[in-house]
Parts: sequence; C-alpha cells; structure tokens
Amino acid sequence: MKSVHIGICGLGTVGSGTLNLLQRNAQLINPRANCEIIVSQVGARRDNPNCDTSSLQVSRDIFDVAKNPEIDIVVELIGGTTVARDLVMTALENGKHVVTANKALIAEHGMEIFATAEQRNLMVAYEAAVAGGIPIIKGLREGLAGNRVNWLAGIINGTTNFILSEMDSKGREFADVLSEAQQKGYAEADPTFDVEGIDAAHKLVILASLAFAIPLDTQPVFTDGITQLHPQDVAYARELGYAVKHLGIARRTDEGVELRVHPTLVPQSCLIAEVDGVLNGVMVSADAVGTTMFYGPGAGAAPTASSVVADIIDVARAMHSDPQSWVPALGVPTAAIKPCRILDIQEIETSFYMRFSALDKPGVLSNITRIMADASISIEAIIQREQPATEEYVNVIILTSVTRESALDAAVERIEALDTVRDSVTFIRVEHLDQ
Amino acid sequence: MKSVHIGICGLGTVGSGTLNLLQRNAQLINPRANCEIIVSQVGARRDNPNCDTSSLQVSRDIFDVAKNPEIDIVVELIGGTTVARDLVMTALENGKHVVTANKALIAEHGMEIFATAEQRNLMVAYEAAVAGGIPIIKGLREGLAGNRVNWLAGIINGTTNFILSEMDSKGREFADVLSEAQQKGYAEADPTFDVEGIDAAHKLVILASLAFAIPLDTQPVFTDGITQLHPQDVAYARELGYAVKHLGIARRTDEGVELRVHPTLVPQSCLIAEVDGVLNGVMVSADAVGTTMFYGPGAGAAPTASSVVADIIDVARAMHSDPQSWVPALGVPTAAIKPCRILDIQEIETSFYMRFSALDKPGVLSNITRIMADASISIEAIIQREQPATEEYVNVIILTSVTRESALDAAVERIEALDTVRDSVTFIRVEHLDQ
Repeated sequence: MKSVHIGICGLGTVGSGTLNLLQRNAQLINPRANCEIIVSQVGARRDNPNCDTSSLQVSRDIFDVAKNPEIDIVVELIGGTTVARDLVMTALENGKHVVTANKALIAEHGMEIFATAEQRNLMVAYEAAVAGGIPIIKGLREGLAGNRVNWLAGIINGTTNFILSEMDSKGREFADVLSEAQQKGYAEADPTFDVEGIDAAHKLVILASLAFAIPLDTQPVFTDGITQLHPQDVAYARELGYAVKHLGIARRTDEGVELRVHPTLVPQSCLIAEVDGVLNGVMVSADAVGTTMFYGPGAGAAPTASSVVADIIDVARAMHSDPQSWVPALGVPTAAIKPCRILDIQEIETSFYMRFSALDKPGVLSNITRIMADASISIEAIIQREQPATEEYVNVIILTSVTRESALDAAVERIEALDTVRDSVTFIRVEHLDQ
Repeated sequence: MKSVHIGICGLGTVGSGTLNLLQRNAQLINPRANCEIIVSQVGARRDNPNCDTSSLQVSRDIFDVAKNPEIDIVVELIGGTTVARDLVMTALENGKHVVTANKALIAEHGMEIFATAEQRNLMVAYEAAVAGGIPIIKGLREGLAGNRVNWLAGIINGTTNFILSEMDSKGREFADVLSEAQQKGYAEADPTFDVEGIDAAHKLVILASLAFAIPLDTQPVFTDGITQLHPQDVAYARELGYAVKHLGIARRTDEGVELRVHPTLVPQSCLIAEVDGVLNGVMVSADAVGTTMFYGPGAGAAPTASSVVADIIDVARAMHSDPQSWVPALGVPTAAIKPCRILDIQEIETSFYMRFSALDKPGVLSNITRIMADASISIEAIIQREQPATEEYVNVIILTSVTRESALDAAVERIEALDTVRDSVTFIRVEHLDQ
C-alpha cells in the first residue's frame, strides 16, 4: 500500500478534530483511501491541548507546510481570507493538492483557486465549507449530477438556527437568546458574521455555483439577518401554520437566478421546519429527483473533521490517476462556468407575511385591502383580534399570495402613508418549498 | 471530448426514465461526465411508449447489449435475480462496466459480482438500488468515509411508509390502505415483497455492508412486515408521543451487528417520524459526524433515473483512469470485507411497546408488573383507561426501558399464561435514535 503525505495547517477546533479523527480511525480510513495517510507536518502558531502532536513535525510557520517537498496534500484549516488565500496559492504553486473547510475563502477566491488548481492538475476539495458534516457538496455535485436543479434552500448556519429555535419554542427575544448562545459557545463574541447572514451567504454562493454552474461571487447575494426579528412575528407565524427559519435560497427562474439569505416563513408540515437547534438542513429540488433534504450537524470539531477527512480520502485515492477522471471542483471545468443574471431582490416572486398596527375603527381595513387589491396582491389569510376598548390600535397580520417584491414594496409604502397606520409595516418572505 | 457508449437493458419504468433523462439533460450531463455519453443500444423485449427509441439500435435480446463490442457500460434495469445476474456476469466477462438499480441482485449476488468486477478492473455502480433518488450509497461510502458508523436506520420502502402514514393520520386498517395503494400504483398486485419487508431487507443488507465492511448476505436479517399491525397500536403510539415506522436497522454492538426490519416506534420529535407517504429517509449515526439524515423520493421513474444517471456519469468519467483510484463498490476492496457475527433477534437490546387485554379487577396489574420486575424490565409508561362497568377486559399499554429481547419474550410468555390476560400480547420494538 503506497503512502500519501499530508500537512495540516491550523490546530484550532477543526484542525485538532481532524488530527484526532485521522489518528483514531486510521485502520478504517487507510483501506478506504487505498493508501496509508501519513500526517507529515503540522503548521500552527501554538499547540492545542486537545490533540497529540508529540510524534509529529510541528512548524510555527504554516508556509513551511505549503512548501514541504515531502507533502502531497495541504489541509488549510486556519480560516480567514488573506493568509489562507496566500497559503492555498502557495500550496498549489508548490504542486500540493488542497483540502479546506474555509467557506469565506472558497466563496470569495474560489474561481482563482480552482482555475489555478486546474492548470496545475491539482485538486481542491472543500466539503467541510458548507453544512459541516453533511456531505452536501458531494451529494449535489455528484449524487444529483443527472439533474437540472430548480432551487435549493438551506438552514446553513447553526447559530441563527439555534437562536430562532429558542425564540420559537420559548417566545424569547433575539438579544436574550444571543447572549445565552455566546455563553454556550454557539455564537462568537462578535456574532455579526452569523446573525447578519454573511456566513450563510458564503455557503449559499458555493451551493448555487454547484447547482447552476455560475461563478462564485458573494456580491449579488441579498442578505438579511435575524437581528430585527420580533418574537411576536415568530408567534403569529406559528399560529398561521409556519415556522420562521433563516434560509439561504437559490432559485433558477426564466429571468435569472435568485440568491438570497433572509428570515423565511416555511410551512410547519415541511421537513425543514423541524430542523432545530444548531443542526443544518439543505433541501435540493431538481427536475429528476424531485425534492431531497440533507440533514445533520453543520458545525463543531468532529462533524467538520468528518468532511475534511472524507476529502482527504478522495484526494489521496485519486491523486495519482488521470486528472481528466477527477470530479471538477464545481462539477464542471471552470471554463464551463458561465455568469448569469442574478435577480435583484425587487424582482423576486414569493408570498409575504405582513404585520402592522392600525387604528381600530370602521373603514381602516377596507382602505388597506383596497391598496392590496390595487397592487393585484391577493390576501390568503388575515388575523385581526378583538381588542379591549381601551386599545386604540390593533395588530393586523396578512399572508399574501405570490407576488413580485416590487409590488409588495409599493403596497407597503402606501399602507405606511395612511394616517390610520402607526409605525412601519413589518414583512417577512414566505416559501412553501413544495415544487 | 471523448465518447462513452452505453447500452440500456430493460425499458420499463426505470429504463424509460433513464433514457428520457439522458436525452433531456444531455447538455448538462456531458460536461459533468467530461465525455459525450452515447446510448448505443437498448435491449428490451418490447417498446415503451413513454420514451423515444426511434433513433436508437434496439435489440430484443438483452444479451446482445452485454456482448456488443462497441459498448463501454451496460445499464441493467430488467430487475430480478436470475436473468439479471446472467446479464451482469456476461457484461463483466465481456469487459463492460455495469450500472444497476437492482437491490435484490446486489443483496443476493453482490459479493460474486463485485469480486468479478475487481478482478477484471471494471466498475459496478448501484446508487439507485437503495432509496431511489437519494444519494445514500455515495453519502455513506464516500461522504462519511472518515467515520466509524454506529448505526443506521431507514425508511427504505415507500409502499409500507405510505400505508403506515395513512394508518397513522386517518386511523385506517392495513388491508383498506393496501387496496388503495394498489389502485394508485404505489403497491404491486402481489405486495408481499414490500409489506413483508423483503425489499427493505435487501436494501438494509447493502447499507450494512457499506457501513460495517461486512459481506452482503440477506440470510441473517430479521424481517417482519406490517401486515399484522393494528390501527389501535398506531393510535396508542401517537398518544405516547411516537410514530410507527417500518424501519431497516443496522447497529454495531460489542457482540456483533444487528440487522433487522420491523415496525418500530420512533419519537415524534425525531425527524424520521416526519418522513411520510411514499418518501424515504435514511439516518446514519457515526462517531465523527454524529447523526445525519438523507431524505427524498425512494422510488419512481425519474428519481430512480436520477441515481442511475449519476452512476453513469461517475463511471464514464473514471473508466479510463487507474483502477486503483476508483472507489471500491463496497468502499473497500472485497478482500477487506470480513464476516462478523450477526446477532439473533433474541439478543438485541431495545425498548418495547406492549399491549394486552387484562381482566379489569384488583390485583391483575400487580401480577403483571411483578412479572416485569422479575425480568428486570422497568416500565417507562403505562396506559390503562377507565372502562364502562359492562366491559370485563381492559387494554393495558406498557412502554419498557431498554431490555434484551429474550427477557421481554420470557415476560410475554408469563403474561400470556395468566388466566387474567386474554389472547396474546402484542409488542412492537421502540427506537429512540438519539445516539
């Protein structure tokens, strides 16, 4: 059995998890890779007490690993997009295959990295970059390769899903759950990347590129976080038969591709509504297979290491074979990746949940429904409760039929201009995820 | 771009679906396969009006396809295990790679087929054999290759799941739903294969072989169907917080591997409890990734074709490369597949649901709980309703803690021997699927 030498850069959570997994399951992993996988070097600024590097060559300079002539595969687990990009490019320039868990790096610099790898007959694998331990990259790129994908929708950030699950099941406020999540280690000290949807947007870009053979580009993704979400909307949604999830959605339409990350009402009867806590779930709907879902832990040392090691096995097994036989990083050669029009959020068509506070007197609701009718927006459901006589204003909740967001926006503007409506109109997009 | 020539044997539901998919999505499929996939010949006893073979060479003798020197890949879609086995072996002897959707063939003759293919440096792919369009073979074999699998549990037969879903949601009788399923085409005229669990056992054997590197062998699988399932047990289960699903379960224990197909109570909070109708879902729990689930359509022309075409793409892309770089059919070379002890059903340890009809008078329940205590079986929950005074007997429902099935059986025998208990004790295994 021949040997394949790997170098691991970064000994944080994922790096130590990967090293531990390779050591623990070596007897299982080597026959699956059809070679002996040897960790020849580790590059890390400091040791990690969660793993044993005593028998390994450890360098404080990760670039030593990228240049080590003995190493076949460089495993980039340092995170970030500056040094990580330099490291990966250095590894490729030195003839190393690359395995990475870095979603930001792939989303932002993937095209350059994959093109370089292709020119040099090297592989870059990144299963761990999306949805942690769930093999969604392989499932989408290879398992569903016979299909034309129609849309995909994923809970691809465990932190936001944990917060939303708590808000839903316990009626808690966003800020309150966030601070608990930070204490538990589910959320970073600076949670912006997660709660504003930036992390999800990175992952969505990768999934959309695989699904539609479009270039990796984070710029046109509409991204809205969960920081403004109010518990009462989560509660009204539940009353209407929906759960609120923070979804990354990519959909192919006749006019272009939708790419958007935002809080979304999904029917409780839809399986993804049941994906709770820090777990992830990605639905893929395609012309032949219909609708599928891939579910599991989307983060953490061991699940992420699971995907990193799967990539190491794939690369180690195939690296000495004809590069023409390799699965291209994005499913097709980079030359076959073609830009397409990405729709502006104003152009998308979906249903909407609306909430506003209206004066509780005759004729008010009639004005509002008139505005909706003028905009050709049908009302699918409405909630307005009887109020105590002392309350001047009443909450009105509306679920609309499918409409263009620009039409909804125009209607919202007219409603907000009414004297009888207080404050602004809250609206949340609704997806039925049924076709 | 080079060409790869395939021959399709069988033009039934899956054969015509595969031909249609290859034709419709050729522009997407060829760049993913890095070659032009050409259907050179079709072997079928009769034409199928659902697909267009007018421009194709059609032979009435499928063995013409297996021997056609122009063909690289034979796609076996005739079903069955006699002619299909001959066809596949003839194809291999003639140097063809094979793609098949045939679960019975792989479960019963897989070891012989894979060993022959390995000797001749040929690939045999069978993604469509388990769970239709869900890429579970690839997900388990490659996506989770870094893991030691602990257990897997799947709803892997859409017919039984449709029947159970109807029994659960509408309180209907088995026989009633079965005849509707037959009218709708969800169940065969002879439904034995599905409702007795034989089809599920075939698929379980394949999944277990991949998970634990054990030989394909249907013989030791404990198989129980759903024909004896009573709607009142489905209703009691729901009351206790469980759904009844027909699961295929494979679990690694210190004493050996459990392989069993039977109706199972699963907690309603478990995602697989929400997999309804003809859909399939496979949970895999492993040491690194934790618990995952793969969900989607498990049968039908287009979903099955989705997996068949994915296999064709994989084989076409890799067939000219070094065979050492191919993923072995069972994840490891057949020489690394080692028999292990398969537990008898009496040896498994799980929780149980029990129902029996007892005389409604003082001391009866005490006798029963004494029997359970003697067998060291704890009672986790019990239901006994107040009865009209006219009813002499009362239904008693018990949920037990985890116990060995032999202990449960002994307790059941003692309970059935009581004068105060009428008829036999119904019991159903319970799985919490949480670790």
